[in-house]
Order: sequence, then C-alpha cells, then structure tokens
Amino acid sequence: MNAQEEIRAADHQQVQGTIWGVGLGPGDPELMSVRADRLLRTARHVAFFRKAGRPGQARRIVEGMLRPDVVEIAMEYPVTTEIALSDPRYNARLSEFYARCTARLRTLSDAGHDVVVLAEGDPFFYGSFMHLFTRLEGHAPLQVVPAIPGMAAAWCATGLPITWGDDVMSTLMGTLPEDTLVQQMRNADALVVMKIGRNIEKIRRALRSAGRYDDAWLVEYAAMPEQRVQRLAEAEGKVTPYFSIVLVHGQGRRP
Amino acid sequence: MNAQEEIRAADHQQVQGTIWGVGLGPGDPELMSVRADRLLRTARHVAFFRKAGRPGQARRIVEGMLRPDVVEIAMEYPVTTEIALSDPRYNARLSEFYARCTARLRTLSDAGHDVVVLAEGDPFFYGSFMHLFTRLEGHAPLQVVPAIPGMAAAWCATGLPITWGDDVMSTLMGTLPEDTLVQQMRNADALVVMKIGRNIEKIRRALRSAGRYDDAWLVEYAAMPEQRVQRLAEAEGKVTPYFSIVLVHGQGRRP
Repeated sequence: MNAQEEIRAADHQQVQGTIWGVGLGPGDPELMSVRADRLLRTARHVAFFRKAGRPGQARRIVEGMLRPDVVEIAMEYPVTTEIALSDPRYNARLSEFYARCTARLRTLSDAGHDVVVLAEGDPFFYGSFMHLFTRLEGHAPLQVVPAIPGMAAAWCATGLPITWGDDVMSTLMGTLPEDTLVQQMRNADALVVMKIGRNIEKIRRALRSAGRYDDAWLVEYAAMPEQRVQRLAEAEGKVTPYFSIVLVHGQGRRP
Repeated sequence: MNAQEEIRAADHQQVQGTIWGVGLGPGDPELMSVRADRLLRTARHVAFFRKAGRPGQARRIVEGMLRPDVVEIAMEYPVTTEIALSDPRYNARLSEFYARCTARLRTLSDAGHDVVVLAEGDPFFYGSFMHLFTRLEGHAPLQVVPAIPGMAAAWCATGLPITWGDDVMSTLMGTLPEDTLVQQMRNADALVVMKIGRNIEKIRRALRSAGRYDDAWLVEYAAMPEQRVQRLAEAEGKVTPYFSIVLVHGQGRRP
C-alpha cells in the first residue's frame, strides 16, 4: 500500500458506521435503559431477528418508538425448533444465516451508516447478537449496551429477593440433560432456569430429584402485559412458552 | 372496630405512600431504566444507604438528577467491615439498623409520602434494599423496579459474551470459604465472582485450584468513569475495590 492508498484506507475507516448491539431488557419499554431509549428513537437503521412470518418479539417491544423514516432490517431465522439442536445441519444452517446477516450489516457500516441491532434481554447473556458480534469484530466499529436480563424482571415479579448473603446462584438452560440439571440444582442455593418450553417436564423431574420442586416458581412473560407468576407446582400439566423462567430463591444469611 | 372507625382506617390505608425500591443499575446514569430515571427526577423523598461520613455510592450516581426541593433520607450503616461477618454482633447491629430505617420509611408512608429508595445494581440481587423490603411487607405499599446488575455491565465491558448455548453460569461471593469456591468454580462454565476487596487472594487461589485462573478477568468500577478491565493475571498484587467483579466467560456451543 502506498501513502495515498493508506490515506484513502484511513479515510474509509473513519466513515464506517457503528453497529450497536442494544439490549432491550425484559420487554417493558420503560425497563429499557435511558441510552437504549435514546439510540432507538434516533436510529436511522434498525436490525432485528425474527422467525419467518412473525412480527418478531424484539420488534414488537420497540413498536411506536422508531423514527417514521427508519430503515428496518429483518433478519429471519432459517430454522429455530424444527431441527434438533444435536443435528449437525442445525449449526450449519444457523452459521450460514449469521454469515449472511453479518455481510448485510457490514455493507451498511461500510457505507457509513450506524445500525442499531435489537437484542432481547442483555446482549451478552445467552443472546443472538453475540453471534453477529464475534463475526463483526475487527471488521466494523462495535458497541454493546447492556440491559436488564429477563431473569431480573422475573425475580422482581415474584416479590421475593433471589439471593441473600453468600448464596450461590446458578443459571441453567432447560435444554441441558436431566442428570446435569439435577446435579446443578443440588449444588446451588438460588436457581434460574431458562429456555423452558418443551423442556418443562424434564425440568420438573430434575427439580423433584434435587428436592427443589416445592420451592420453584414459574414466571411467564416477565415485564410484559401477559406477565403471569405462579408456583411451579400450581402450573401442573401446563404448556409454557420457551421464554418462561423457572426460579428457586436463595435463603441465605440475612440480619 | 365500629363502622366509622372502619371507614377512617380504610381512608388511612388509601393515603399511605408507596415505597419504591428503585434499581440504579451499575453506575452510569444512562444505564438506568427509563422508569427509574422518571421516578428519580420527580421524587419528593429519596432515601439511600451510605457509610457514615461518606457521600454514598448510590447518592453519587443520581447527582444532578434530583428535584431542588427533594427531601433526602440518608440511612447510615452503623458497621460495614469493622466487625467480622461471623461475629454475632454484626447481625445484631445490622438488624437494629434496618428496623430503625424501616420505622423511618413507614412514618413517611403513613403520612402519605411516596419514597424512592435508591438501590445499586438490581434491588433483589444481593442488595441491601431487600432487608427493608421484607420488613416493610404488609405495612406499606411496595414497588420494585429491576435494574441492570453490575455483572452485566462488567461482562459487556470485557467485550466478550459471558454465556453461550447451554453454559451454566454461577455467581459466587468472594466471602465464601475457599473450598466452596473451588468446588463451585469447577462445576460451572461461566463464573461471576462478586464482593472481592480483601477476598482477592483467596479468590485467586481458588481459581488456580479450579484451573480457571488464566481465563479470569477483573473488572473494576464497571460502567463508571473509573472503569478498568484487565486479565486477573495482569493485576497480580493489586488492591481491588470491594465492588470489583471477577469473570470467567463460558465457551459453550455456538454455530
């Protein structure tokens, strides 16, 4: 590269737009951060994931907040629950999909556009934005805005503090094998179980084996208009959404 | 109680003010929720904990946001680190203190005043507000506003997602015994260690025993102007503040 090319490259570097991973929090627009609120209301380009044919949960949360002239970039999952997680085609198809999304966002950034990518909950806590972030690193300026994770809205909704004193809190995915769940549920004081949906019966069995079932709560749609809080034992036989959260509160030291 | 007394009691009930436990998040005022921001800017009575003789971290975060005619209620800890946690006098003195604070807040609520109680991080996640909440339940109307926990700001500051796929994340207090720390550090994929300060050397030893030391990060003052992010191994021999956070990122499944 000669000096002139270097200057041109540097110029080009300077005009790249920033890709913002903006955490939306649990779902109530009032529980977004002041920064997220401001970024969303002023954004010219807003990208979000959704299942094909659906409006998308993230997009639904920001309804009424975006500029009238906003450019919306819907990134539609090619697959979510139709292929088993263990099937190698699952990873291959998702990987291709994230590469396509990344290319689209890089094109916008290279043209000087900032892009706000909507992330439900906190972007770096079991979020989909992370798959874009790791692929974009080194190729576009990136910023991440942390947010209230869904679990915090869930435990606030129960009206009971989740952890006291020296309590150990573990967050567990309902997609884990049953014996792993049992072992982890025995080893921690406070429990947060996410990714419920079709895993609910396995989670119930694991909680029973670990002796934690009677203390478990089920929070559906935390911080959303449909929010529902009940003892897990009272929700026997119920179908629960994937984004429900099961909680067991710690009982640690307190003055 | 005769009918007239009942009506008077009901009237009295209706005019009780609400006590709000408002999470401030990690420290950056822009990372407060829109709801917290609104409540703070309009509050007539604002209460907060602090160490005697100090301005108080929670109060510092809201500097410049409060009404000019705000009534501030400083609740000053009689003891923090001067008495060992294991000493029964620690619990006794703190318990007395919380009872005094509760009485003060109830008096305000009974007089019809809403009170915003500042809570660093999330109010129900290892927070001090919980000690007031459990004592106030059934005596005054209570509301809790969840917030971004300090750990979320910490992992965002490292620029690395904390959890992937089915990762198990455990939050551990540095005040735990060393062997408990080691066992827990071996059992989880992602780790968040809080309450660091004088426990730092114990935490380092535990991380080494669990084979996690080289992957650990130290985040000081997450989301505050003094924020500092480094590998724990690069901070050898350093004194770290109590509210630092040590992180080990999960390395789980990702497409």
